Amino acid sequence: MKKLINDPADVVREALLGMQAAHGDRLRVDHSNRVVFRADAPRRGKVGLVSGGGSGHEPMHGGFVGPGMLDAACAGEVFTSPVPDQMLAATLGVDGGAGVLHVVKNYTGDVMNFEMAAELAAENGVEVVSVVTDDDVAVQDSLYTAGRRGVGVTVLLEKIAGAAAEEGRPLAEVADIARRVDGQGRSMGMALTSCTVPAAGRPTFELGENEIEVGIGIHGEPGRERRPLAPAREVAAMLVEPVLADLPAADGAPVIAFLNGMGGTPLIELYIMYAEVQQLLEKAGVPVARSLVGNYITSLEMAGCSVTLLRADDELVRLWDAPVSTPGLRWGM
Amino acid sequence: MKKLINDPADVVREALLGMQAAHGDRLRVDHSNRVVFRADAPRRGKVGLVSGGGSGHEPMHGGFVGPGMLDAACAGEVFTSPVPDQMLAATLGVDGGAGVLHVVKNYTGDVMNFEMAAELAAENGVEVVSVVTDDDVAVQDSLYTAGRRGVGVTVLLEKIAGAAAEEGRPLAEVADIARRVDGQGRSMGMALTSCTVPAAGRPTFELGENEIEVGIGIHGEPGRERRPLAPAREVAAMLVEPVLADLPAADGAPVIAFLNGMGGTPLIELYIMYAEVQQLLEKAGVPVARSLVGNYITSLEMAGCSVTLLRADDELVRLWDAPVSTPGLRWGM
Repeated sequence: MKKLINDPADVVREALLGMQAAHGDRLRVDHSNRVVFRADAPRRGKVGLVSGGGSGHEPMHGGFVGPGMLDAACAGEVFTSPVPDQMLAATLGVDGGAGVLHVVKNYTGDVMNFEMAAELAAENGVEVVSVVTDDDVAVQDSLYTAGRRGVGVTVLLEKIAGAAAEEGRPLAEVADIARRVDGQGRSMGMALTSCTVPAAGRPTFELGENEIEVGIGIHGEPGRERRPLAPAREVAAMLVEPVLADLPAADGAPVIAFLNGMGGTPLIELYIMYAEVQQLLEKAGVPVARSLVGNYITSLEMAGCSVTLLRADDELVRLWDAPVSTPGLRWGM
Repeated sequence: MKKLINDPADVVREALLGMQAAHGDRLRVDHSNRVVFRADAPRRGKVGLVSGGGSGHEPMHGGFVGPGMLDAACAGEVFTSPVPDQMLAATLGVDGGAGVLHVVKNYTGDVMNFEMAAELAAENGVEVVSVVTDDDVAVQDSLYTAGRRGVGVTVLLEKIAGAAAEEGRPLAEVADIARRVDGQGRSMGMALTSCTVPAAGRPTFELGENEIEVGIGIHGEPGRERRPLAPAREVAAMLVEPVLADLPAADGAPVIAFLNGMGGTPLIELYIMYAEVQQLLEKAGVPVARSLVGNYITSLEMAGCSVTLLRADDELVRLWDAPVSTPGLRWGM
């Protein structure tokens, strides 16, 4: 295992030290709870947005904390759900009196722990609504999930619901918008290589020299099938076709097209893939309103990519365009 | 070779198609010349900033084109200098009557070709000043370079000189600022793995399972030495110490600290490295004014990182903070 780490047991703690060092001007890290907060949390009267999950998907979620997106993110061990106490600390820490939205990716541990945290928060007088993302069309049930896995849509949802919260909209509306994003978004990913969880010290799975895994999960969970290595244009079709087949028509609204890197694939390849994705969408008659290309929801150093398409009406596009200032996504401020 | 590409011969052309598809709202790609332009170039009365070099270092340079940074970037084949005709097309295309600054990394081919382009531009009545970056303290001469290689400082220079040009300052002043950045900045990098140039189809060099290359160049050129794999805190010291030893005192100005990923190393590791770098700077009594952590000047899918320190007086920090809107660096607009 070749990694730029110290002790494998310290990876998450030390990465949070690095986040604090790099972004201490606008983030505050609660190291005992492993929660990344907006420096100015809680914001009086604003709905708080809390997410979190296993580490190893950076910049998600800690890198999406900041004005216009999340108020706090809980960091679990690599590929392991945070515990309810972390989520409770995050929830209480961001509550500004308008309630808190939990953004939860659909993995059994995360869902269970966020539910428990929401109950504890309610006991503390904080209203919590949870929205669970389940946008991965690859498989119905999976290694850590009953139902579909939550993947790339989570990034878009955190941005769009974050903008709605920043506008001062009430919890029910912010939650509605978040549910709309999950309902209108679909994703699928693939891997060229495995990743290695530091504490395990060896690759999560093995792929042959000429094999790819289509429909891979963001923790290396098995996908739909193994296929021979193929050109970018064929790989793009393997991802775009199932996503389009499952994508709600939503009155023919255009899409936000998100081509995500899994962590180990260089940007030059992501652009090649995006060119293919855009051509496929053009052929299918799907207009692209906005796009995002880069490493946003990763699986450590896994090589590969995923495609997320979100049917975005005018309101969702407007919220997407709203200013945001986080380490991972930043524009307009 | 496992890559998300089609024909290895088409990598650069297709990546530029992807950039156009993703960023066509604010970039214009001249596909015949392989130049990425600001959509609104040329800007009347503004000094034009042109850079470029071999591809494979994305987001540099095309991803740094936009308001507040470059006006155009020329894309060579992977790890191969663009030709003078490309640089000439870029220079003529951005000239708004105030002259053009060429930002050139110190590699023999780039320097020679940019010189020729500057002469051709002069014949066309466009004043050009060139600034060559040579910030890599690892080795004095190298595989493709007489003198020190130009690496991470190039990113900081393009941002800072770009801000000066955006303010409407004259060519001589923008060039002075650019030279100041190169003069006050130093870098050093390391690799955990090689990269594979698509046209070559095999790794540029071999590293053992427990070996790292310290002082690596961004094209895989040999560094100072091979050493056994070491913890992040030791790797940080291997990079920070030689950089600090060579860094001008510059009246004790604080530094902009830039921890760059080589492309294949995930963000979680870059944050761990940055925590170590910041501790070393603290111990050395070097205050950090600003920081940047992420993949900005890469070597395809190479795993590893580099450290760049720039002594930045108030003016350079102010220019660093100025609004910028490019695919690779964006804030304030």
